[in-house]
Amino acid sequence: MSLPPPAAVGSALADIDTPALIIDLDAFERNLARMAEFARAAGIGLRPHAKTHKSPIIAAQQIALGAVGICCQKVSEAEVMVAGGIADVLVSNEIAGRAKLDRLAALAKTAKIAVCADDPEGVAELAAAAERAGSRLEVLVEIDVGAQRCGAAPGAPAAELALKIASSPRLGFAGLQAYHGSAQHLREAGARKEAIARAAAAVEATARALRAVGLNPGRVSGAGTGTYEHEARSGLWSELQPGSYIFMDADYARNQRADGGPVDTFEHALFVYATVMSAPVKERLIVDAGLKALSVDSGMPLPWQLPGARYHRASDEHGVIDVSGSISRPLGRGQKLLLVPGHCDPTVNLHDWYVGVRGLASGAARVDCLWPVAARGALF
Amino acid sequence: MSLPPPAAVGSALADIDTPALIIDLDAFERNLARMAEFARAAGIGLRPHAKTHKSPIIAAQQIALGAVGICCQKVSEAEVMVAGGIADVLVSNEIAGRAKLDRLAALAKTAKIAVCADDPEGVAELAAAAERAGSRLEVLVEIDVGAQRCGAAPGAPAAELALKIASSPRLGFAGLQAYHGSAQHLREAGARKEAIARAAAAVEATARALRAVGLNPGRVSGAGTGTYEHEARSGLWSELQPGSYIFMDADYARNQRADGGPVDTFEHALFVYATVMSAPVKERLIVDAGLKALSVDSGMPLPWQLPGARYHRASDEHGVIDVSGSISRPLGRGQKLLLVPGHCDPTVNLHDWYVGVRGLASGAARVDCLWPVAARGALF
Repeated sequence: MSLPPPAAVGSALADIDTPALIIDLDAFERNLARMAEFARAAGIGLRPHAKTHKSPIIAAQQIALGAVGICCQKVSEAEVMVAGGIADVLVSNEIAGRAKLDRLAALAKTAKIAVCADDPEGVAELAAAAERAGSRLEVLVEIDVGAQRCGAAPGAPAAELALKIASSPRLGFAGLQAYHGSAQHLREAGARKEAIARAAAAVEATARALRAVGLNPGRVSGAGTGTYEHEARSGLWSELQPGSYIFMDADYARNQRADGGPVDTFEHALFVYATVMSAPVKERLIVDAGLKALSVDSGMPLPWQLPGARYHRASDEHGVIDVSGSISRPLGRGQKLLLVPGHCDPTVNLHDWYVGVRGLASGAARVDCLWPVAARGALF
Repeated sequence: MSLPPPAAVGSALADIDTPALIIDLDAFERNLARMAEFARAAGIGLRPHAKTHKSPIIAAQQIALGAVGICCQKVSEAEVMVAGGIADVLVSNEIAGRAKLDRLAALAKTAKIAVCADDPEGVAELAAAAERAGSRLEVLVEIDVGAQRCGAAPGAPAAELALKIASSPRLGFAGLQAYHGSAQHLREAGARKEAIARAAAAVEATARALRAVGLNPGRVSGAGTGTYEHEARSGLWSELQPGSYIFMDADYARNQRADGGPVDTFEHALFVYATVMSAPVKERLIVDAGLKALSVDSGMPLPWQLPGARYHRASDEHGVIDVSGSISRPLGRGQKLLLVPGHCDPTVNLHDWYVGVRGLASGAARVDCLWPVAARGALF
């Protein structure tokens, strides 16, 4: 059921069929290098989240630049990554259900696999699955550092869980998962800083509780593209888990720096390429990229380098762009444009192929590579 | 890259791996029959929209119940349908770009294919593609009946376009595409009725303009699950194009009848099955179905038959369900629940497989069939 790629290597940008998922490789490689350099300078491990890209090719590039391993969110994602040559995967999530647990435990025989737990029953199930598989799983206790999603309560409850893990012959207590998801998208720099200060207090309390029961806190893993500098600076985290920095979506670009300007450490490197299929009146363009080509959960996509153009409505296979404001470059039927997706992760998951281009800034972009979105649809 | 199905035929509901796309076959078949019976009684053609289900298996069932053919929104969808045995497809959309046009014209050699146009350049490109392929394409003029998306202006401009189509030896003028997308989701029954009354006036004006230039209006195709009764009653449309009636999503169920009650002609027949992977506090369940398993563009999914439970936040792979209201059936880690998706079409497009179950109402549901979402990701 997988589809042929929308372009051939060497072809010009304008010849790519649409809608297509485009990587500006020049910007993407600068993003990869910037985060790798940050982690190196800060003396902290980098474990990028592969749920963003779902590609072992990209994961291998991150590891080549010094990443200690990657994160996945699903067992099936981890399977795709291990099959693609990635040897160290943290499933930064709780796994429930015997079928998934058995696959996870089996995977731990061919790669270094860690997983999270946030309750005693989950720990017992992990131990039973590792026992059935004859493998050993490293387990991090996930603590709720403020996101109000998964996670045990920080402090003594987390330490109790860690003891239960440490007491299982099939499991190893590997540390803490301390990720504050909702803090990533707080717009004000001060609000993000405060949220991570509160998360740090939760990590510290848990570290104390662990030491009180004779355990070393081990690895402390967390942080995302919106907050990683704070976790790194705290001295409490040992690994950063950012994902979106490689692509930068429209939503992350709405975050502010401390001086109030837009966060611009990373460049937009991911686009959905679309064709104008109808221009029925001069105020309106209809493009062929709608809800099935881009995710609008975090806002509409932004037309790239088209001041005055506003993508304001998405239906299944149509996007409506308002060009009643003055538009720098008039577009007609059959012409193509780039859109910066509102949210990169679920947008990537809609496509079978990345089309990697070089020379986008120069205006003479050509297709350099085609990479499958190998773990697209890996929900299990 | 396509994934194995999440269940085996014959297995119990609770043994289906999650997140999975479930069809309640009993409700689904009642929905199919109800719309088929409506069209038969009204003496109007039924051409269901396959963008909803992306499955030639479902399309064949619709045709077996009397549908005259199906609609698709993309050339690649039409290719999948024709390959699956569907012989009459209307691409209810404008197609731009030579690669797609050539594929469309080639497809017209193996099935009865019609397509829409809304400007003279589009008509010229269709004619050129049919000439290159040595085929013939039936073309409907799409008119904007109020949705402010694609579509030529009703009346004389549409008639002029029809003349241009009729004058091409490779094209046949086949009628009008008159679909009011945004009217489908107007909540008040009166507002939907008024919107279709205005659409009907646009169709009538165009029919007059066509007759004035010596053309027969031909086929008038349109209508969706929210408004089809009005188009049928008008006597102006000859074909209905509803898609969502087969599944009924949470958004359509928010439409009101004339008496103010909820629209209940069709039953919820599509679900995303999810597992509780964490229940860290008693007010909150975390399920394994987030933005990559369901589309939230038209609102959050509804937990099925769980009064007091509210799915209120989706992240990539997590859904947060608030159970602080009294919940009828307490759920813990590892337990599964059904979610009615907010919007069925883009939710279906996230999955590789349908899991068809029977006996859901009885509480002893079993897997009856596994159908591939054959045109998933068919964006081109």
